[in-house]
Amino acid sequence: MASKSFYAVIAGVGAGTGRSVALRFARSYPVVLLARKPESYNDIVSEIKKQGGEAIGISADTSDPQSVSSAFEAIKKELPDKKLAAAIYNVGAGFAVKPFLELTPSDLNTSLASNAGGLFNFAQATLPSLLDSVPSSPFPPSLIITGATASVRGSPRFATFAAGKFAARALSQSLAREFGPKGVHVAHVIVDGVIDIPRTKEYRVNDGVEDGKISPDAIAESYWHLHTQHRSSFTHELDLRPYVEKF
Amino acid sequence: MASKSFYAVIAGVGAGTGRSVALRFARSYPVVLLARKPESYNDIVSEIKKQGGEAIGISADTSDPQSVSSAFEAIKKELPDKKLAAAIYNVGAGFAVKPFLELTPSDLNTSLASNAGGLFNFAQATLPSLLDSVPSSPFPPSLIITGATASVRGSPRFATFAAGKFAARALSQSLAREFGPKGVHVAHVIVDGVIDIPRTKEYRVNDGVEDGKISPDAIAESYWHLHTQHRSSFTHELDLRPYVEKF
Amino acid sequence: MASKSFYAVIAGVGAGTGRSVALRFARSYPVVLLARKPESYNDIVSEIKKQGGEAIGISADTSDPQSVSSAFEAIKKELPDKKLAAAIYNVGAGFAVKPFLELTPSDLNTSLASNAGGLFNFAQATLPSLLDSVPSSPFPPSLIITGATASVRGSPRFATFAAGKFAARALSQSLAREFGPKGVHVAHVIVDGVIDIPRTKEYRVNDGVEDGKISPDAIAESYWHLHTQHRSSFTHELDLRPYVEKF
Amino acid sequence: MASKSFYAVIAGVGAGTGRSVALRFARSYPVVLLARKPESYNDIVSEIKKQGGEAIGISADTSDPQSVSSAFEAIKKELPDKKLAAAIYNVGAGFAVKPFLELTPSDLNTSLASNAGGLFNFAQATLPSLLDSVPSSPFPPSLIITGATASVRGSPRFATFAAGKFAARALSQSLAREFGPKGVHVAHVIVDGVIDIPRTKEYRVNDGVEDGKISPDAIAESYWHLHTQHRSSFTHELDLRPYVEKF
Repeated sequence: MASKSFYAVIAGVGAGTGRSVALRFARSYPVVLLARKPESYNDIVSEIKKQGGEAIGISADTSDPQSVSSAFEAIKKELPDKKLAAAIYNVGAGFAVKPFLELTPSDLNTSLASNAGGLFNFAQATLPSLLDSVPSSPFPPSLIITGATASVRGSPRFATFAAGKFAARALSQSLAREFGPKGVHVAHVIVDGVIDIPRTKEYRVNDGVEDGKISPDAIAESYWHLHTQHRSSFTHELDLRPYVEKF
Repeated sequence: MASKSFYAVIAGVGAGTGRSVALRFARSYPVVLLARKPESYNDIVSEIKKQGGEAIGISADTSDPQSVSSAFEAIKKELPDKKLAAAIYNVGAGFAVKPFLELTPSDLNTSLASNAGGLFNFAQATLPSLLDSVPSSPFPPSLIITGATASVRGSPRFATFAAGKFAARALSQSLAREFGPKGVHVAHVIVDGVIDIPRTKEYRVNDGVEDGKISPDAIAESYWHLHTQHRSSFTHELDLRPYVEKF
Repeated sequence: MASKSFYAVIAGVGAGTGRSVALRFARSYPVVLLARKPESYNDIVSEIKKQGGEAIGISADTSDPQSVSSAFEAIKKELPDKKLAAAIYNVGAGFAVKPFLELTPSDLNTSLASNAGGLFNFAQATLPSLLDSVPSSPFPPSLIITGATASVRGSPRFATFAAGKFAARALSQSLAREFGPKGVHVAHVIVDGVIDIPRTKEYRVNDGVEDGKISPDAIAESYWHLHTQHRSSFTHELDLRPYVEKF
Repeated sequence: MASKSFYAVIAGVGAGTGRSVALRFARSYPVVLLARKPESYNDIVSEIKKQGGEAIGISADTSDPQSVSSAFEAIKKELPDKKLAAAIYNVGAGFAVKPFLELTPSDLNTSLASNAGGLFNFAQATLPSLLDSVPSSPFPPSLIITGATASVRGSPRFATFAAGKFAARALSQSLAREFGPKGVHVAHVIVDGVIDIPRTKEYRVNDGVEDGKISPDAIAESYWHLHTQHRSSFTHELDLRPYVEKF
């Protein structure tokens, strides 16, 4: 169904959602992985290659417009003949959990820069290419953004994190309304729960019940479904949470 | 992936979403179609059988608890050894488009009875079976409800229709929060646009642009995706709309 | 500021919000109190008269269109020269708290009939009069509806109550969008917490902290504020909750 | 009702909401006006004094934490014996209206810095004082934030403005949930329409109908109502729009 003339790019890869999304999309496209440090993507690149897929990793700080530009110039050199089918923004920094009066302007700026600024830079770099792919892409060219509970709910101790996530959701909505009618599918996913990754192994959530943490592979399946939706039936927003999660 | 030991039931089949959902689920399960009149399901039953699937149609008025009970007793007789994997509530009556002061109590009651009352009866009839299927079902047993723009927005001229659709969404949320932790996936789909069916052929929507009406087959793909989501990553609500739809 | 040529009508009076709203509006208008039984309004009528205000009580079941018509005919006879300045719908029946599978169709119907059907009947009876008052009323003629947490959130054990409350909110939104531009102020108030009335005296909420239950007089102040808002600055929806309430 | 031992501070004053709020609160409290340039507050200070109120203006850039600190040190010197009763954040910069691909990182940063960063700095400077006033303030100490349509809706051409406004709403919700239980009333107001000020005199909105733009004095009345709400009945969010506004 998909095509080797197209590629997908995933910003924000590590042990969780980013890795699973990369593996899932690599079943149909060469994938480009962006992360600040090579150690975040090196293993995933190897894993994809081992499974017969194509992958390259590029170091980039999405919160820096210059760094994003350089990364996309590098992509152009590495994949000169390929068009962009899907861009996934999965960067999740700026997670400071503190009472409001202990937070600093720097906590706020880190969250805004990584969640909103990074998405802004990534969207500006990818949307022209996604628009360019509209007539030929096997599925509607897609920009998919990873959100969180904090995208729709400001909580005590999460004030600055929520600020960044709300701002990213504002961008997502604005982009969906502007670029949807041009054929680009912009979707925002509210991941509402703890993701089951090595770092959260010890977390006891939902009373430790089986499947009480979100499988990142399951998230990736929903991202792939979003990408393959027919343009007459785009989803802009969906939530994902473990069956046992309170909401 | 799916199994002949399970079946799916779709309430509210006709020329649009119901038919497409029935065809989609029939690729994996025998399906039972409920509609008030045989002419609503007869052709779909034939179509499914022609494609090698199994289907039966049963006449039922979901707004009548007695009629729903009878239908499920009939199902038990027809499919004595099968368990329920998925129940889709797609009944959409009660669509009166008038200024408020021209609406009658009967307009309100029709909308409440078909959208909320019918879902209530259908949910009471199917949830015990869905719970029973939790340990063995190939995918998490699912109750999927078709909503509309009017599920989240009350508009002039749509007061009673919105009342019924809001009420159905209230039930959906309540059921998701009660039965999710027990392993049943309850999902609510906001269909935001005109569906491309024979009845809407002549409607000029979204300036008549191609794919400006929602393909019911595309809706069915998203319902199937919902049904196959891993229980660690359930979606409760998603929207579906044509790429050109204003929202 | 207000005028004796106008009156206010409050449907659903008893010991809580209805009584406080009646007393508050009686400081400016003669008030008509509707309740199913005289014992619900008799004491309030006396209380208002003792304070120098005017009040009459009329027995009516708002879920019955005929009963509502009769009540408004009675009002016309009792107050032949007065116009309607404010109509408050505060009926709150249909509160069944049970697991979904223990709820009956009758629980659903009671909630839909009192919360949505009653509002429908009350709105049909009052909107023509409210429209008629637009040119002369001291403040924009107002229809104010009492909602609850369940108006925006379906919860386990509150499925049918939420269905009724969601449906009422749908009507409120539809009416606001249709009648606002004609000069009638339709507002919906989400009362999110336990109200401090004799019946809830023994409830221990919010750890029994002072002011942890909502003062009905405070609710009434917000209703009066809504009524007095300038037509260039209408509020459609506001929430009210104790400072200590989790939300 | 109020007291000369308390003061109110309004950040973001000019010809519209800020001025009206200052005049309204000056009927009960000395007020401090913050704006980047003296020409924004000088006339309002004179106007308040002419009416017998007390007012001082202080130049401050709320997006700069240092500037905010200096302003509050200046307040402490000018009003050494007064406690803070109400803090209103009404700063509204960052309004760039452009297609997304014409927006720059600087457009985004300006919106985030003024709408979210400024609120963050202002809240950090005022919340300790507001907490300190809880036991003695005539009304619950209040932090009221001015939002906009873009606080709840991302639109084409408003991507960066919405990002800032969504982020401010995230902070507002987080603060309400953290400081409400401590007795501070945090409220967020969605101003949904064009405000009737000299700058918008020529705008033709809502077909030029009378009262089709929001009276800033009407907004101020709702802010004062929020401030005076009893702590058992706090509103966190309300919308304000002209009766003819589509929503």
